[in-house]
Amino acid sequence: MTSPGNARIANVVGLGLIGSSIAAGLSERGWTVHGDDLDLDVLEEAHQRGLIAMAGLNAAAEITFVAVPVSQIPEQVARALGSTAGVVTDVGSVKASICATTVNDRFIGGHPMAGSEADGIDGADPNMFDGAIWVLTPVTDSDDEAFTSVAAVVRSLGAEVVALTPERHDALVAIVSHVPHLTAATLMSLAAQRSQEHATLLRLAAGGFRDMTRIAGGRTDIWLDICSENREAIGAALDDLIGGLSEVRRLIAEERRSDLGERLQTAREARINLPGRVTDPTVVVEFRIPIPDRAGAAAEVFTLAADLGVNIANFEVVHLAESARGVAVVLIDESMTELFRGGLIARGFRPSVSALG
Amino acid sequence: MTSPGNARIANVVGLGLIGSSIAAGLSERGWTVHGDDLDLDVLEEAHQRGLIAMAGLNAAAEITFVAVPVSQIPEQVARALGSTAGVVTDVGSVKASICATTVNDRFIGGHPMAGSEADGIDGADPNMFDGAIWVLTPVTDSDDEAFTSVAAVVRSLGAEVVALTPERHDALVAIVSHVPHLTAATLMSLAAQRSQEHATLLRLAAGGFRDMTRIAGGRTDIWLDICSENREAIGAALDDLIGGLSEVRRLIAEERRSDLGERLQTAREARINLPGRVTDPTVVVEFRIPIPDRAGAAAEVFTLAADLGVNIANFEVVHLAESARGVAVVLIDESMTELFRGGLIARGFRPSVSALG
Repeated sequence: MTSPGNARIANVVGLGLIGSSIAAGLSERGWTVHGDDLDLDVLEEAHQRGLIAMAGLNAAAEITFVAVPVSQIPEQVARALGSTAGVVTDVGSVKASICATTVNDRFIGGHPMAGSEADGIDGADPNMFDGAIWVLTPVTDSDDEAFTSVAAVVRSLGAEVVALTPERHDALVAIVSHVPHLTAATLMSLAAQRSQEHATLLRLAAGGFRDMTRIAGGRTDIWLDICSENREAIGAALDDLIGGLSEVRRLIAEERRSDLGERLQTAREARINLPGRVTDPTVVVEFRIPIPDRAGAAAEVFTLAADLGVNIANFEVVHLAESARGVAVVLIDESMTELFRGGLIARGFRPSVSALG
Repeated sequence: MTSPGNARIANVVGLGLIGSSIAAGLSERGWTVHGDDLDLDVLEEAHQRGLIAMAGLNAAAEITFVAVPVSQIPEQVARALGSTAGVVTDVGSVKASICATTVNDRFIGGHPMAGSEADGIDGADPNMFDGAIWVLTPVTDSDDEAFTSVAAVVRSLGAEVVALTPERHDALVAIVSHVPHLTAATLMSLAAQRSQEHATLLRLAAGGFRDMTRIAGGRTDIWLDICSENREAIGAALDDLIGGLSEVRRLIAEERRSDLGERLQTAREARINLPGRVTDPTVVVEFRIPIPDRAGAAAEVFTLAADLGVNIANFEVVHLAESARGVAVVLIDESMTELFRGGLIARGFRPSVSALG
């Protein structure tokens, strides 16, 4: 694969499932992607499939994605910061520990909430992030320009950016990802153990059980890293789950049918209302938010939107000719207008709002 | 729909998802199906779609499927036994309580391990049971002919029959179905609760969480019946799950990475090896097993096969001209020959085995 000389340049370090999908998505969108991986066969394969244009890091890359296992991220992020001049982001499933060890103006932590059954480069999919949530975790003094650059590239891959503090991210994914995985593994182990007493047990496992335990088939090493790096949030969420199950057990033993019914009904409604893949709102309003001259202000607009549950349908930062200050132009669903406006004003921003036709 | 006068006749009581799928499957296979349901609109709909030929029970039906909610099964089974001369079976998810209250030569409890997201008659699918496991729960004095009749009809719908005692069935489905459902509901409730503190939480829920909580979207009333009727087995399985999760929590807190890794690896392998839909073995052997003149002997052959993990690929009971006794002709996978032979002899059967070309 050859690219025009003026193509935008990106590096992707680690060509597993996520890294190779990022490489595929960027290449498809006209970027010149440089890739790196410890496994030379993978590197060669990525090149042959046209996922990357060249092996090795390019010092002129405007962005470097670090998509290696969690335990190796700090080292690889440091290497990317040292050998390139652009912004650096990672895709690790745990953020607080990484963002604490890697404090740099040009680094913004990230975590795309996407994946597939497939493993490694064979699962490379340029559309993997289409409609997915991609969390970015700017810290208080993150550089506005670095944040908006990473956010814009991520958005160009089809994802919706949600900004959270690293600690908040870790607490939330413990609930929706890490503990569900550990629960799937525990259910699967329990059934496997009992199947030694009764050979037929696993043959009775129908669709529901298969759905519930599917994620237990994933790679073990990734999860050991996650459990180590996010052990406090996981511990707290496991305590909540164990407490919830103990309560259910008690309601069943005491035959408290209506209390149990209420719980199951609440869960049912929540499941039915679980938001699907991101879709663009039909009626949007435009917020123009002057960005004060302090680090982290653009990221704060995003973090606030996530706090309020406001989906950002589109954004850009424009720089006014007569001033060094930027203006964030943010599109959101019309129904969220007052909520977002209230939040912004409370945080000291001075937004102007206009309806779009 | 009209049927030839000599078509086999079946009744289906309760035209929900399972009942209407049984009706659809039997109608498609040439049976004349009579259907009953408290909801006259459903009854009319079933008739219009050709799932049933007529409304109401037919006294001459050779088999009646009772597919009503668990709490109403004993009453409906009694009604079917009183108003028809054929065999009666049910499809309830709990068996011990039903089989204890309904002791009758012509009744064999059953539970097809199949279903779908769809609810009610809209989900009617004549192929729902194709390749699925269908548990039958004969009791010690179940009539051989009743058992083999029900088993043959169930097999004709594409399902594989697994025979278990009612108590064994309840203990096993508590592990692979009931507790997974309660766990999905508890995980979903936990996430919904936390989402009140942070609006974005549920938007982070990606594929794994969706898979794990899917069954929590199912009908609540069905599960309340199940929790009530099977509360002891569910309590025991919940205790095991809570114990397993507590152990995982401890391994994480104590950073016992290799112990945790072993657990996750065991679960991963078990998940990968989870048996899929039933497929016919490539090399089969034929067992001819004279059935002694005592009640329950045919059912015992099946129950023993399930105990041993032997899949029965095909079976029929033939009656020898010179004797009132029957011979069960059973096909199984060749690799299971010695295991099954050993078990049969230990239980006093005298099988002869021959390889099939």
